[in-house]
Amino acid sequence: MTALFPAPVQDLIEELGRLPGIGPKSAQRIAFHLLKVSDREAGRLARAVTDMKARITVCTRCFNVAESRADGVTECDLCTDPRRDDHVLCVVEEARDLIAVERTGEFKGRYHVLGGTINHLEGIGPDQLRIRELLRRLAEEPVEELIVCTNPNLEGDATALYLQRLLADVDLVVTRLASGLPVGSDLEYADELTLGRALEGRRRLGGGKG
Amino acid sequence: MTALFPAPVQDLIEELGRLPGIGPKSAQRIAFHLLKVSDREAGRLARAVTDMKARITVCTRCFNVAESRADGVTECDLCTDPRRDDHVLCVVEEARDLIAVERTGEFKGRYHVLGGTINHLEGIGPDQLRIRELLRRLAEEPVEELIVCTNPNLEGDATALYLQRLLADVDLVVTRLASGLPVGSDLEYADELTLGRALEGRRRLGGGKG
Repeated sequence: MTALFPAPVQDLIEELGRLPGIGPKSAQRIAFHLLKVSDREAGRLARAVTDMKARITVCTRCFNVAESRADGVTECDLCTDPRRDDHVLCVVEEARDLIAVERTGEFKGRYHVLGGTINHLEGIGPDQLRIRELLRRLAEEPVEELIVCTNPNLEGDATALYLQRLLADVDLVVTRLASGLPVGSDLEYADELTLGRALEGRRRLGGGKG
Repeated sequence: MTALFPAPVQDLIEELGRLPGIGPKSAQRIAFHLLKVSDREAGRLARAVTDMKARITVCTRCFNVAESRADGVTECDLCTDPRRDDHVLCVVEEARDLIAVERTGEFKGRYHVLGGTINHLEGIGPDQLRIRELLRRLAEEPVEELIVCTNPNLEGDATALYLQRLLADVDLVVTRLASGLPVGSDLEYADELTLGRALEGRRRLGGGKG
């Protein structure tokens, strides 16, 4: 049988199919889109990939993504920004979670990217995360509060618990993101776990003698 | 305000966001995936894009995608395959539609890729399509039946009607894919069975000797 696609098209479809969220049909659609666009436009995409790999490194302080700079500074913009509050440190799993927190505009402190969560099934223990680096920062920086912003799932909770225990004797407030109902959601459609967490973490609005 | 992403990451997210079916969130997700993979793996993707653009050309006969070959042949595998039936010609909008028809395994003839459909709103008339090239082929090749495999939507139907009228006086059976495909859907996404049935039940639009 004749192959459906010439090899270069097939190769591209395969490479695209490796990307997260891209199934075989999407990969084929994107490949055909790239067939139609100008060489210049396709080249821009290819160059964006290689440029990013060449120019992006990891911040030596917080492990956020950072641009390699001519002056040799390998800290990210958030770490070098003098306006950020050194007293609050937000611990996230991945750099993309940092972006999510940053988008809220509610946090003005510093970050620390763990690089994952404790996951015994996949053989990821504390040693595979940047916890040693976190401890070093806590010793060197004037951090007063550590906000554990790991995801509210099994692995995120386990990692938060681990950090809480690890830091039990350190003079430091450790907090965790509130779990509860998403803003704008319907109580009727909330899952039991989320609603349970929301009840557990209920806040007092007023009244009583207090 | 500090930019959320270093420029190389932002650039990549923008380029990814131009691809069909990739929204801003997906683009960000893919960019972070590419940040984590090895330089080698990211390089493979970039190279697949540039290779494909460099090595793929258009078949001079049917306008399907074709690999540029050392021997200078610029016809695609389907056109050079001696086992295909020269008497039946399937007209499709795009090369990806050809692939969809080919996947059914129901068609053994030749193809002709129009390069789009008549779309007056977007200023695409018959002259922008490869209709002149189609007429030349009909004059030169022993085609007895022309299957119009344009999408079962407004533009595809208009293009089929145009071809039917254009070829009314030519000694040729003109057929159209059977309805059986959901109206308003995309040929590219049809499942093989449905598309196969549609091929089987194609209806005659006119032409021939009655």
